[in-house]
Amino acid sequence: MEEITFRAIRKSDLDDIFLLLQQLTEINYSSRNKNICWDLFKNNNSSNAIVGVYKDKPIAYGSIVIENKIRGEVAGHIEDIVVAKKYRGKNIGVKLIEKLVDIGKSKNCYRITLLCNESLSRFYNKNGFTSNNIAMKKYL
Amino acid sequence: MEEITFRAIRKSDLDDIFLLLQQLTEINYSSRNKNICWDLFKNNNSSNAIVGVYKDKPIAYGSIVIENKIRGEVAGHIEDIVVAKKYRGKNIGVKLIEKLVDIGKSKNCYRITLLCNESLSRFYNKNGFTSNNIAMKKYL
Repeated sequence: MEEITFRAIRKSDLDDIFLLLQQLTEINYSSRNKNICWDLFKNNNSSNAIVGVYKDKPIAYGSIVIENKIRGEVAGHIEDIVVAKKYRGKNIGVKLIEKLVDIGKSKNCYRITLLCNESLSRFYNKNGFTSNNIAMKKYL
Repeated sequence: MEEITFRAIRKSDLDDIFLLLQQLTEINYSSRNKNICWDLFKNNNSSNAIVGVYKDKPIAYGSIVIENKIRGEVAGHIEDIVVAKKYRGKNIGVKLIEKLVDIGKSKNCYRITLLCNESLSRFYNKNGFTSNNIAMKKYL
């Protein structure tokens, strides 16, 4: 398999990324205006997103939200990690997380967190993530 | 006990908030410039923070980070929840979370998440939070 390259997301990736993310969580986005999604995403400059590209096609996506805490620390939150089903098991996810951790380092994060299903903990262990807390959710 | 009032954080709260947050996580902030902390916090406008005030003194603090996702959803992340030790057990934390959830609603969040120690899950259940995932961390 040729090398995957990672780069910052571009607006022209949106159709591919929307489809990719359906493999993570299905939503009905038929009525959404992608221009508005893009503007909101870019204007809230705390989010940094990258795509993994194989043969000119985005096949992986992930983002890291950068939080400036009140006491001056910077924290990173990894969100929305997905690798296209047919490319899983090839270590692409590990490289994707590595790239997001690098972004976190470049933004001076002291800590990066993520929420996941317990079955994925071994996957995230590969990048040095460990678990000692639980994640709680409320849908509005 | 008189009523606690909740309001947005002000720069003049910083000394009190820094002390309060030491009860959550101790850090050495003696060399930090609070003006810079404040500017970074306010400039990254994804963070919304409130204080609970009792007799003109901040005794509780919490924040919610607003994330614009690439597909247009808005997600909230509750961070840094603290109630001063001598005021715990009086339901102030529940009201604080309620106010942060209200902010999340006003920002059109479809979901709010938080990370906590398992021992606190019953506390967050009171505000309708449930757990089905784990939190993973990596310190940089």
